[in-house]
Amino acid sequence: MMTRPTLKDIATRAGVSVSTVSYALNDASTVALSADTRARVRRIAKEIGYIPNSLAQSLRSRTSRSIGMLVTKPLSHPRYATIVQGASAALAAERIHLTILADASGEIYLDDYRSGRLDGLVFVGHDDEAAPDAVLDAAQREGLPLVVLDCGAPAGDVAYSTVDFDYAGGATELLEELAVRGVRSVLHVRPDVASRAERLREKALVHGLARHPRLSLRVVSTGLTDEMLRTIENDPEAVRNYEGDLGSRVDDALAAVAGDVHEIAVLCSWGGDVEPVMASRRVRDGGILVAALAAGVLSPRVWPQLRYSRLPLDRAGAEAARLVMQELAGGEHEHVVLAPELDRP
Amino acid sequence: MMTRPTLKDIATRAGVSVSTVSYALNDASTVALSADTRARVRRIAKEIGYIPNSLAQSLRSRTSRSIGMLVTKPLSHPRYATIVQGASAALAAERIHLTILADASGEIYLDDYRSGRLDGLVFVGHDDEAAPDAVLDAAQREGLPLVVLDCGAPAGDVAYSTVDFDYAGGATELLEELAVRGVRSVLHVRPDVASRAERLREKALVHGLARHPRLSLRVVSTGLTDEMLRTIENDPEAVRNYEGDLGSRVDDALAAVAGDVHEIAVLCSWGGDVEPVMASRRVRDGGILVAALAAGVLSPRVWPQLRYSRLPLDRAGAEAARLVMQELAGGEHEHVVLAPELDRP
Repeated sequence: MMTRPTLKDIATRAGVSVSTVSYALNDASTVALSADTRARVRRIAKEIGYIPNSLAQSLRSRTSRSIGMLVTKPLSHPRYATIVQGASAALAAERIHLTILADASGEIYLDDYRSGRLDGLVFVGHDDEAAPDAVLDAAQREGLPLVVLDCGAPAGDVAYSTVDFDYAGGATELLEELAVRGVRSVLHVRPDVASRAERLREKALVHGLARHPRLSLRVVSTGLTDEMLRTIENDPEAVRNYEGDLGSRVDDALAAVAGDVHEIAVLCSWGGDVEPVMASRRVRDGGILVAALAAGVLSPRVWPQLRYSRLPLDRAGAEAARLVMQELAGGEHEHVVLAPELDRP
Repeated sequence: MMTRPTLKDIATRAGVSVSTVSYALNDASTVALSADTRARVRRIAKEIGYIPNSLAQSLRSRTSRSIGMLVTKPLSHPRYATIVQGASAALAAERIHLTILADASGEIYLDDYRSGRLDGLVFVGHDDEAAPDAVLDAAQREGLPLVVLDCGAPAGDVAYSTVDFDYAGGATELLEELAVRGVRSVLHVRPDVASRAERLREKALVHGLARHPRLSLRVVSTGLTDEMLRTIENDPEAVRNYEGDLGSRVDDALAAVAGDVHEIAVLCSWGGDVEPVMASRRVRDGGILVAALAAGVLSPRVWPQLRYSRLPLDRAGAEAARLVMQELAGGEHEHVVLAPELDRP
């Protein structure tokens, strides 16, 4: 299928950068270009039938100025609420509305885009959940301004922008911090879930161990599988069993670790696992360091033995907002990776 | 100032119910009415210059079908995120978008309403924060479909719908539960904040004590004032001091209470105070019952001594959505009060 000519197509033919094309086509641009370059770019754009995104957008914007955010998980989970909050504040500063969308397929929201009710979309991913094909297709074929968040940076050329977290970097930094604090035994509490984030963290931890031969790592599986993950949210009884079970697993694992409690740390992949771990008397009363690769609900202000590597969720939302506005303005597709931030007490 | 004629005005003149007026004016209605009633209602509507809301809305809906939700607090607070989630799901079922609005004055969003970018507004209150006057005026004078949430049921006739929580009922129910469980001494942990919710809870607790002469109540102030409330959110150091201080206050108060630990309960007005209370060793290791008049981040599944009276936040959001759609359809203003729900372990 033929796709609409893009800035890149013009850039290739004109032998200039995409930015130069963008400046050349933009009447309001203050960037100095030679009259020759400007004329050549505009001639090629006309020849290949380029439709300036900014014109189409400005027409549509008279009725919408709304960006849809597709979130397939409940906002009552602070992770998603904080992303929405970050995006909402950044868009509000430009007088653009943020609309919450909840349809998993994304299909119906494409109609909203086509009819001018929405100017663009941000897809908020979760573990290995990718943006729906229909949405990715719309970016490619219809020029839908699209940002995909937390689905992994794309391998090849894509027609949208992305925002991701550096899961490997977060794991490396936290392991270094534990080593600096004199920890010798790390209990890694992690789900039996083959998600991208888990794979990246695992690899980074193993690399980190190679740098610290005195550090040992044991894995405590939380017992959570992909299968359970799909059903557990709507099953309070299953959650209760899971949490009780996790406390026992950590207790058992701690009983098997020799050495001073000050040389032991429990490292949770998931922030949500911190609460059942901290409820374990052995952990709490032993003052055992509990670290997590994402923030949970417990506050390190209240629990001094707790240390988070935080995903910058608010900033991810703000970046997604910035990028979708950049897409709206016909700018380049950009791929942003944000580093987790270690609590500095 | 003259206000636009409403369904109620027609109903009064015609001597019929508002529902009958609504059915009579609605061509698509399948409700059986006598031809005489239908004709009379329509004649009166014409005489007093009634503009059917549904017509105005259906015109506007071609470009919007969006409801704005004005939230002046961060969505990273689960209380507000859960309300938004409830409203978003209920509106999505009707293919109406929910747009997050963050401007405290509400003024700029009135322009969005007037220009057809938004069909109506839901204002989400906080403690004694009332909806902005400009928004209330717009409901009165311009027929803005408006729902005001958690600001207290209005005393007189108003031009909007409301959703509120029964704070007194929640306090009464929780106190009864403590009495049933054999508690004799209640430490009431509460801020020095003169909010409506606190006044209602205080009154209900004092009434409850009158029914249980063996029950004694002591008040432990958290030290939080209205003044502090305005600044503390952006001051992590102040939050740390507050939380540490609260732990000591509760410890001191517990040291002064005689009797078996099974006869003592700590009752927090705020769910957010539960975490610093639970971090107190005296509370935690004593297995002292901790109850709260709103849910906090700690999970009663993990901490068996914890008991919440939960504000039905998700349902409040859904009710606000239902009422704003009712307002959009030109229906009556309705005032809903939702009872908190006590955890049943």
